[in-house]
Amino acid sequence: MPEIIEPRVLKGFRDYLPDAEKARNSLLTRLESVFRSFGFVPIDTPALEYAEILLGKGGGETDKQVYRFTDNGGREVALRFDLTVPFARFMAEHVEELYLPFRRYHMAKVWRGENTQRGRYREFMQCDFDIVGTDSASADADIVLVIAEAIKALDAGEARIRINHRALFNRFLSRVGCLDKSVSILRSVDKIAKIGMEKTKELIGAEVGKGIADEILSFIEPEKDFEATLGKMASFCARGDQEADAARKRIQDVYDIVLAAGSADYLSLDPSITRGLDYYTGVVFETFLNDLPSIGSVCSGGRYNELAGLYTTRSLPGVGASVGLDRLLSAMEALKRPLARESLPQVLLANIGDVGEVELHRVASGLRSRGISSEVFPEPKKIAAQYSLAQKKFIPYALLLDRSALERRVLPLRDLEQRTTREFSNLDELVNFLEAAKA
Amino acid sequence: MPEIIEPRVLKGFRDYLPDAEKARNSLLTRLESVFRSFGFVPIDTPALEYAEILLGKGGGETDKQVYRFTDNGGREVALRFDLTVPFARFMAEHVEELYLPFRRYHMAKVWRGENTQRGRYREFMQCDFDIVGTDSASADADIVLVIAEAIKALDAGEARIRINHRALFNRFLSRVGCLDKSVSILRSVDKIAKIGMEKTKELIGAEVGKGIADEILSFIEPEKDFEATLGKMASFCARGDQEADAARKRIQDVYDIVLAAGSADYLSLDPSITRGLDYYTGVVFETFLNDLPSIGSVCSGGRYNELAGLYTTRSLPGVGASVGLDRLLSAMEALKRPLARESLPQVLLANIGDVGEVELHRVASGLRSRGISSEVFPEPKKIAAQYSLAQKKFIPYALLLDRSALERRVLPLRDLEQRTTREFSNLDELVNFLEAAKA
Repeated sequence: MPEIIEPRVLKGFRDYLPDAEKARNSLLTRLESVFRSFGFVPIDTPALEYAEILLGKGGGETDKQVYRFTDNGGREVALRFDLTVPFARFMAEHVEELYLPFRRYHMAKVWRGENTQRGRYREFMQCDFDIVGTDSASADADIVLVIAEAIKALDAGEARIRINHRALFNRFLSRVGCLDKSVSILRSVDKIAKIGMEKTKELIGAEVGKGIADEILSFIEPEKDFEATLGKMASFCARGDQEADAARKRIQDVYDIVLAAGSADYLSLDPSITRGLDYYTGVVFETFLNDLPSIGSVCSGGRYNELAGLYTTRSLPGVGASVGLDRLLSAMEALKRPLARESLPQVLLANIGDVGEVELHRVASGLRSRGISSEVFPEPKKIAAQYSLAQKKFIPYALLLDRSALERRVLPLRDLEQRTTREFSNLDELVNFLEAAKA
Repeated sequence: MPEIIEPRVLKGFRDYLPDAEKARNSLLTRLESVFRSFGFVPIDTPALEYAEILLGKGGGETDKQVYRFTDNGGREVALRFDLTVPFARFMAEHVEELYLPFRRYHMAKVWRGENTQRGRYREFMQCDFDIVGTDSASADADIVLVIAEAIKALDAGEARIRINHRALFNRFLSRVGCLDKSVSILRSVDKIAKIGMEKTKELIGAEVGKGIADEILSFIEPEKDFEATLGKMASFCARGDQEADAARKRIQDVYDIVLAAGSADYLSLDPSITRGLDYYTGVVFETFLNDLPSIGSVCSGGRYNELAGLYTTRSLPGVGASVGLDRLLSAMEALKRPLARESLPQVLLANIGDVGEVELHRVASGLRSRGISSEVFPEPKKIAAQYSLAQKKFIPYALLLDRSALERRVLPLRDLEQRTTREFSNLDELVNFLEAAKA
């Protein structure tokens, strides 16, 4: 006998067993349906690309985590570590074959050799959606509206999309003479939820002095409503500052559109939202579930000036966001929204043994042609084992077709949870009952 | 200005632009719905695994094509080159957490560094479905039934699933004393469609003599119907050969089930179907579209005795098939079934410029909440450019909301193909029209 190889996956990788995979599929299907309702179209790019394309700028933190190697043709290649870089390359390469504004979504796996001690996986799925080729409030608002509709479609309860505009913060910092320190100030502000107000003030104070730190903390404090907060933020900028005025108008326009579209309840202006990455140039946003704020933002993004500057001289401004799939999946679990139980087989045709498989398949086929998914147990086996399979697959009913039922021309349906059996006199009656039970 | 990196993908890899990706998605969604209606559940496994796991036996033709490398942790890893090997590892690892029979489907990418001159891609998607943990006619038949239902769901016209049983062929070869040459004989028979009857007879004759070659060619000639062909095949085996009798009974049982389930029109017994791979031990099958036989089999598979022998001592017999996605996609294209046009945005809200985006988004949101997918053009632009975008996205209608329409309280809908405009007096009327247009 040959030696057995121990079956195992690499550290940081995992299999998706049926329940986990079904939950992920259900989530993606619902998101996809929202994306499509707004005119977003799907694309796909290769998992493997030239290392030079993926790592362009190079030297960053991500660099060390990238899976890269030399292929059999001597090319330096790498597995993609996000969906943004391949999308930039994609747009630069195909913009002439496409149309602008281009709205795409992309749901696909990425790979990062991260430290697994933080509970991170080295293979995970990302879900990005963007509108490229327009710098407009309409496109900014569409991204916000997609997020709001996605939250509704997932039945994830109330949620808050916290929006801000990079330029308002920067113009304020410019007035107080701290624009050169904006990156580290934004980073400190970003920590406020984690380290608290006082500690944040100390951090900033050490850098720019207590007076300005007080002003910054006052700037990022939200007022009673959207309008009031926006007015306050604008008042912290210099009078006649055109860039600040444009930013204020953009935020106002986005709000007006979201209000008209009926989703203003989901939107709030939060001057403390900055997003760490420095490539955002306009609106930025994060999304928190009211019932589970602690899991962090489930969808974040913002506006960027140049998507594909590394690969083309063509200007491609855009706005987009990324869904935190793993967070959302945990959230749905915690909120008791069992995504995995969707689209199960509805009936197990039990194999009692005194009726042949031909008869079972005849009935199963009749059920399926009437829209009822049905699984035939392939061999006679103890009924307990068959019920156990049904239970593990969340199949709610078993059809107990035996010789006696065939002779009496009835279809006995077992409700596996209630442990009751009901007889139907024909397939149509049975189907009507099962259709009603679905709803 | 930094140097521009030329945007390009690796040789043998490709991007999926929206139409291609939508077509692939539509195909997968339809297949998935058929799989689920038979109780199949989805799983997923990592793209990257230990090279030892994936290449177990090693040394084969596939071996050279595998993308393998040493990761940053010094592990020998490889990208999966099919979905069968990871599934075998998966079953060996998780069988205790699962249930038997286990029906799974897996639709995912695989990678092979193949010679691209043959028009092959180095990254492509596979779609496998199997029933593991049972050696029964019922499971064999279920695979055939899934294929038949998939062909129907895809509206791919008439098709023929050609089935055979490895044991019948082998028992016949045993009787004529050629079992030891079965692999090369099966390989010659497999070429019959390509090289023709005479050439095949010559090939086999050179190996086993003309008399036996004649018998083999006579054996693989189908008779007028399923029953007659099966009878002929059995008559070529030795009398009282129990293995041959069991194989004959299995084929008959599968046929009876498929007949009862209403799909016998799709099934034919073809003694010349052998499948090249030697791990099949029972039924084998290939599927051909009647309207496009030249593209080859669009779904092939068979029964195997041991799925996971490399990784476990537990016996896991199974039956399954693999869908030829790229072939099916080409076929759908050739058969003028434009999968990409499904689930398009239905309406483009044109941006004429004298009505603000707020109003456009209000209407778009009203349409979406009534089930009509709608895209807002984000900025005022020449109407020709907006129509051009609609055309490229297959959006059939444009709503031309301008100041005059607002004042007259009408909703002017442009049929972009007919080039006619029709006015509706409220949203519900518009929605009714669009719903009717969908069907």
